Amino acid sequence: MTTEMLAQAIELDAADPLKGWRDEFVITDDDVAYLDGNSLGMTPRRTLDRVDTVIRGEWAHDLIASWAHWLDLPQRVGDQLAPLVGAGPGEVVVHDSTTVNLYQAVRSAARLRPDRRAIAVAPTEFPTDRYIVEGVAGELGLAVQPDFDDLSRVGVVVRSMVDYRTAVVTDIAAETERASAAGAITVWDLSHGAGLLEIELNAAGAEFAVGCTYKYLNGGPGAPAFNYVAGNLIDRVEQPIPGWFSQVDQFDMDAAYTPRPDIGRMLIGTPGILGLVAAQCGIEISAEAGIERIAAKGRAITGFALDCCDTVGLDSPSPRDARHRGGHISIRHPDAESLVARLASERRVIADYRVPDVIRLGCSPLTTRYRDVAVAIAAIAAAP
Amino acid sequence: MTTEMLAQAIELDAADPLKGWRDEFVITDDDVAYLDGNSLGMTPRRTLDRVDTVIRGEWAHDLIASWAHWLDLPQRVGDQLAPLVGAGPGEVVVHDSTTVNLYQAVRSAARLRPDRRAIAVAPTEFPTDRYIVEGVAGELGLAVQPDFDDLSRVGVVVRSMVDYRTAVVTDIAAETERASAAGAITVWDLSHGAGLLEIELNAAGAEFAVGCTYKYLNGGPGAPAFNYVAGNLIDRVEQPIPGWFSQVDQFDMDAAYTPRPDIGRMLIGTPGILGLVAAQCGIEISAEAGIERIAAKGRAITGFALDCCDTVGLDSPSPRDARHRGGHISIRHPDAESLVARLASERRVIADYRVPDVIRLGCSPLTTRYRDVAVAIAAIAAAP
Repeated sequence: MTTEMLAQAIELDAADPLKGWRDEFVITDDDVAYLDGNSLGMTPRRTLDRVDTVIRGEWAHDLIASWAHWLDLPQRVGDQLAPLVGAGPGEVVVHDSTTVNLYQAVRSAARLRPDRRAIAVAPTEFPTDRYIVEGVAGELGLAVQPDFDDLSRVGVVVRSMVDYRTAVVTDIAAETERASAAGAITVWDLSHGAGLLEIELNAAGAEFAVGCTYKYLNGGPGAPAFNYVAGNLIDRVEQPIPGWFSQVDQFDMDAAYTPRPDIGRMLIGTPGILGLVAAQCGIEISAEAGIERIAAKGRAITGFALDCCDTVGLDSPSPRDARHRGGHISIRHPDAESLVARLASERRVIADYRVPDVIRLGCSPLTTRYRDVAVAIAAIAAAP
Repeated sequence: MTTEMLAQAIELDAADPLKGWRDEFVITDDDVAYLDGNSLGMTPRRTLDRVDTVIRGEWAHDLIASWAHWLDLPQRVGDQLAPLVGAGPGEVVVHDSTTVNLYQAVRSAARLRPDRRAIAVAPTEFPTDRYIVEGVAGELGLAVQPDFDDLSRVGVVVRSMVDYRTAVVTDIAAETERASAAGAITVWDLSHGAGLLEIELNAAGAEFAVGCTYKYLNGGPGAPAFNYVAGNLIDRVEQPIPGWFSQVDQFDMDAAYTPRPDIGRMLIGTPGILGLVAAQCGIEISAEAGIERIAAKGRAITGFALDCCDTVGLDSPSPRDARHRGGHISIRHPDAESLVARLASERRVIADYRVPDVIRLGCSPLTTRYRDVAVAIAAIAAAP
């Protein structure tokens, strides 16, 4: 049974139109089934070279002169990322952490709806999103509403496009429109969708979005996040951390604060260049491979994973309809925690454990092979 | 005249007890007089190796498992930095940008003085500090007081230890005590002092401080900043951006937000590991060289710079008393802007221009030679 599964996986890998892209990554041990690219994407080869060039050439040799082209790097990398999320030039900027970006977006959105008395976030939302909503609501004297049913009191809705536990996908266009019709602004967290799914922020009428670059975008550990603000909204946004990189004339040292009229107004302090360059490398690869092909492989490989679960009798609560499914599948297993630890310690299968009994298998289309999925599910099924 | 100056510089370099440390840095052209280490410190050799090891070994090979030791890296690097600023273990954490750290510190301090109606900051303060104070004051309905004379209405004082234009040093102990006696909390910006001067935060009774690591600490472009909070204060601090890295049990995904009881409560989102590792390399070198020796060289080399100015008849407003002087000296020159640009384009002397007529010569004790200073001042004096 598992032999057939593996044979099928090898065939699928051979026919995979994206298979060549794995060669763009540093693979130190081809036998490891890495299924945690949804937590930390793998290392693009070009990142090694690019970071080395930036350290040796731009920092060590060119020294301070390099700031002439580093200054707007957050905007330029944002423009490279924009097509991957259906945004236009000047609507995305890559900087700081997802949490900081989210704080800016939620505060900015709340300022645009001063008459509304609540922010809505699901109790099942990723912790940092919940904490930020609770924090912002607390400081502005607003309520936190735990559902999206009646949005008449709600100014800001904070939602993940892909649920980090179940990988269930929410329809951005439909939910943005529903919130908008009720007078609320939606802040989308795209962390588990960016670089994996076809996202159409402009077409969906999305106002704010944030996301990370270290999962499917392979930007490196703690790589900077991104802020999207709809182009027709940016000059009305007042973000709460007015640092000097958001100032219209940054080097007029005596000027009063005047925020830039463009997406640069979401910047804060001096951007971390090493992390930004690594993020750029990951974003470039996704853009080159093409988000349509990436999304197609994502649907196919998670579908294969669910088929394998059925074959070996493992219970997965992940959506069967590929249109509603993100990049990982979950498996319920009574020994999930110890099993994930044991597989990792053997360096055969690297997966993710989530309380109380969930094994998460992340399928990152540019690096995950069908055989990784088959090997992992066979190993889980074979556990005593 | 300039020949004698250069001869004296060569003697001083030969006798410099720190001269060996320059070999720890990547020097691509030994003839360049780099006098902008106060904007961007040079590249430690070990940073090249360490970043490469982190990318190849920790990220590419160990993959997600590396988070086990990356998780508390901001605190560990903070502990390495602490002795350089006179702080104890658990009082410093390295993360995010200086602006973000400052926003957290100012907001946190203001919360501890809810009865006070103003924040004090000098109109000559570095722009990002002014902008943050104005922003926070605006959102909390507080006034901005432009002087430190009468602090009876002031809850928070924001001050740089070293003025970014004049390099005049403010006495942290005296001014913290004066503010404290008036009931105000001081947030110190140590950006132009950390890694250069002997700073005694604990002995000064300092409550909050922030600073950058990319100037005298040689941490790399946009390297993460640091937050210092006095140990006896940390468990009362409520910082405004409650991300998941500040949560007491970070991986209990269903928990309500409870901030960590330690300096980790200043953390926000996922830290950028590449930038943090580079910052760590720079901090290590400063710690190994010893801040007393670094500070002594700093006083000596800026003193030599002022002597050279006198010799060639250039006008410097920088303090003559070494105890009141930071790491750069300023020179007033009618053609400052074009002269700095021309010297840089020739790659002989790299200095810094500040409006309207100031040339800034930064002396970074681990990398700047006396001959760099002599060459620069001779070149400025020889300008037509």
